[in-house]
Amino acid sequence: MGGRRALKAVLIDLSGTLHIEDTAVPGAQEALNKLRQTSLAVKFVTNTTKECKRNLLERLQGLKFDVQEKEIFTSLTAARRLLVQQQHRPLLLLEDSALEDFTGIDTSDPNAVVVGLAPDHFDYQSLNKAFRLILDGAPLIAVHKARYYKRQDGLALGPGPFVTGLEYAADTKATVVGKPEKTFFTQALSELHCSPDEAVMIGDDVRDDVGGAQSAGMLGILVRTGKYRAGDEGKIGPQPYLTCDSFPDAVDHILKNLL
Amino acid sequence: MGGRRALKAVLIDLSGTLHIEDTAVPGAQEALNKLRQTSLAVKFVTNTTKECKRNLLERLQGLKFDVQEKEIFTSLTAARRLLVQQQHRPLLLLEDSALEDFTGIDTSDPNAVVVGLAPDHFDYQSLNKAFRLILDGAPLIAVHKARYYKRQDGLALGPGPFVTGLEYAADTKATVVGKPEKTFFTQALSELHCSPDEAVMIGDDVRDDVGGAQSAGMLGILVRTGKYRAGDEGKIGPQPYLTCDSFPDAVDHILKNLL
Repeated sequence: MGGRRALKAVLIDLSGTLHIEDTAVPGAQEALNKLRQTSLAVKFVTNTTKECKRNLLERLQGLKFDVQEKEIFTSLTAARRLLVQQQHRPLLLLEDSALEDFTGIDTSDPNAVVVGLAPDHFDYQSLNKAFRLILDGAPLIAVHKARYYKRQDGLALGPGPFVTGLEYAADTKATVVGKPEKTFFTQALSELHCSPDEAVMIGDDVRDDVGGAQSAGMLGILVRTGKYRAGDEGKIGPQPYLTCDSFPDAVDHILKNLL
Repeated sequence: MGGRRALKAVLIDLSGTLHIEDTAVPGAQEALNKLRQTSLAVKFVTNTTKECKRNLLERLQGLKFDVQEKEIFTSLTAARRLLVQQQHRPLLLLEDSALEDFTGIDTSDPNAVVVGLAPDHFDYQSLNKAFRLILDGAPLIAVHKARYYKRQDGLALGPGPFVTGLEYAADTKATVVGKPEKTFFTQALSELHCSPDEAVMIGDDVRDDVGGAQSAGMLGILVRTGKYRAGDEGKIGPQPYLTCDSFPDAVDHILKNLL
């Protein structure tokens, strides 16, 4: 890779890349262990709006992945970081399972609105409360803007439609903190003291993982697991640095070609 | 008005133009009676999503306005007409108070989605049901797309944000049937066998009433009652044909200058 600096870090997506629901991608644990034996730093990055880090960690450890909580960086982490930086007191439209990641944040007399996927809170009254805060000047912070996601019983609305509705109502634009936003990737890397041209991202979502990472200046590797569909690599420009069958293949490529 | 045909019809907005909540605009009943003494046809046009015609009629008659039910044309009327024309079986996201205007419409096994202001139905489960129908090819029909409206306790979300959210989720565009859509005005006029250049619209909303009517080829008269705010006439181009203090002044102008 002409002009790039030596590789220092690997960012890895979780669902669809390391595991599909409660099943690990074959060989993924061993591949992760091989990465651990190098000097490369590793961070696990995911667009969750419903799960706190502890839940994600428990799932990964249950699947025998060698992961520590401090290595997990989620869209909720990014939202929390923004709130702290700007000293906002948020109204959190989040499921209870996500609130643990906001422990210690003052939510009294809110002057900001954070929206994740919160089916239990997406009623008229709660959305109206958020709308009025935004009209009064509160920034609208979207954990991410996914249109929908796959549930066991079919596709279901993501947080994006509710964010978009509030944007329309108050004639404003949300600050999106999750993938594929550039700041998401640069924040994850800043904890590793590493710049984008020293890093590679591995994921199954061509836009959120690979396109986002490449727009931030990283290399992007697309894996053909999870939500990957044939032809996905053609959906972004420039195309992924590499497309390969699964996470273990991505790790093999890194060890052979990028070190 | 060079090039225009002789005036045959007057379309009149309700809330903000004939009355403000439960109080008639001073002199409005007498002005309406004066219009009745001419050969002009009259129609009452409004963007309601929550009230059936019967409720609107009862309010107007309670305020001593000379109005018949068949003279009222609402955004719900327009929605019903579209459903009948296209033989759709709708999922109606409407308040119970609006359903009366859809009596006789088959709502079994729905293949269309109608969205009005329906706080009681704007929960995740109902919106998700609508989303899945749209993904399956059902058209999304918006009664109107107002961002918000004024409630006694402050501003509150209109149907627009929920329509916009569904549009974003399913990557589609809603068919809007209410004001300021051109088809709303032409449908209201078609019942009077009258073309836009034979008609004038009187209302307090510079965009929905006056701008919409003028875009459809009618004359538009803006009244300084209801939601009118100083300077509103400058917000559309071309500007209103006329801006005057209230409905009685608009009628006086029509009788003196347009007959």
